[in-house]
Amino acid sequence: MRMKKSLHAFIKEELIERIKTDVYKVGDQFPTENELCKEFNVSRTTVRIALTQLVQEGYLIRQRGKGSFVAEPKVNQILSHTDDRFTQQLQAQGKYGQISLEKIEVIPARDSHKKRFNIEENDPIQKIKRTRSANNEVTQYEVAYVPWNIAPGLKKEYLEASLYKTLKETYGISIHKTTEIVEITLADKDISHYLQCEVGQPCFYIETVAEDKNGLVIEFSRSYFRGDKTSFRIERYYQEN
Amino acid sequence: MRMKKSLHAFIKEELIERIKTDVYKVGDQFPTENELCKEFNVSRTTVRIALTQLVQEGYLIRQRGKGSFVAEPKVNQILSHTDDRFTQQLQAQGKYGQISLEKIEVIPARDSHKKRFNIEENDPIQKIKRTRSANNEVTQYEVAYVPWNIAPGLKKEYLEASLYKTLKETYGISIHKTTEIVEITLADKDISHYLQCEVGQPCFYIETVAEDKNGLVIEFSRSYFRGDKTSFRIERYYQEN
Repeated sequence: MRMKKSLHAFIKEELIERIKTDVYKVGDQFPTENELCKEFNVSRTTVRIALTQLVQEGYLIRQRGKGSFVAEPKVNQILSHTDDRFTQQLQAQGKYGQISLEKIEVIPARDSHKKRFNIEENDPIQKIKRTRSANNEVTQYEVAYVPWNIAPGLKKEYLEASLYKTLKETYGISIHKTTEIVEITLADKDISHYLQCEVGQPCFYIETVAEDKNGLVIEFSRSYFRGDKTSFRIERYYQEN
Repeated sequence: MRMKKSLHAFIKEELIERIKTDVYKVGDQFPTENELCKEFNVSRTTVRIALTQLVQEGYLIRQRGKGSFVAEPKVNQILSHTDDRFTQQLQAQGKYGQISLEKIEVIPARDSHKKRFNIEENDPIQKIKRTRSANNEVTQYEVAYVPWNIAPGLKKEYLEASLYKTLKETYGISIHKTTEIVEITLADKDISHYLQCEVGQPCFYIETVAEDKNGLVIEFSRSYFRGDKTSFRIERYYQEN
């Protein structure tokens, strides 16, 4: 069975492609419904559905009485071939980055922590909730766990900068390897609160395990990124042969 | 304002963590509602919500009259530090991978293609729709574009194996670099048809630009992965200093 792609999906795709290839540039006034009806030779309803989806997906901004404009691109985070810190990555995109400590507490290790960290049940673990913002808008919410015996007494001033830098400079611990698992999740009440989005909004979910060179797990974290505000870039180079 | 995480979310998270750390192993019978009520000291309703979400997110499988069992993990694709092919990655997970050509057509270049490929409007481009399956279940749907003048006459038998290998062996073209952008999108009619999922299901969307060593764009593709069936793994190593 062959299905035809719906007309509005085709038009939406072509318009996204034009935005991404700078045929329409950030801040540009977008063509009007009338102009698009003529160009694609379709009904106003079809054009409207395409434009509404472009607004929902964050490509266009509608201004009452003025029409639509090409939106700022999503916050782009590079996943590989770099260990640049968050704030540096944002700076490269002309954005101002900030890390806020939301909560830190010491909790007793549960069954699953025993396995992750190779510690005993009820051993103390530091549970750290942080948010990261770009231009004062929260894009990431992170819950990290660091056993007390590895880095006792993590403080607020350490945690509003890079945790790995703190581990190195204050505790003499070097992270050798991180393994990240990327999934999609739907925001629950807690996540939607911190990310200031609606419950049920699709989010990137990244789980990170950070190890030292002996394979000892130093940190385990869960991060949530708003799907409508975040994209990741991955660059790979190939061997000639 | 501080919000309490709902009880069922806490229980769900702890149970996922146990599955991921192999406290409960794939295929294991999962604890019953009664057992979980007792362990967490919560109502049956709370446990039920947590279990239902675990089934929806693909961690558990329910069997009528028999209870719940830990599901096979999601298809895990490695994004960095590898250029292993799809089928090899699946083999490593004990799964059988297959690539199917759904459609190939030659279309005239549109405005946006001109920019991407540095060609003229109406120049011919090959548009290739493929799906990839793991153990006979479709996990990826891909639409790729390759200009006719770069690799004329791509054939079905080339495309049900690795495109990059074909480009190299049949056309003498080496891919030097790929840049991937990862976003979340909601399945439209076309995507949901090929991925055999519902319209509106959150999916990974990956756009890939493949260049030769002179920076000439050889291939541009859009891939869609079912969010409930796919996770990506990223490994990074850090310099000691």
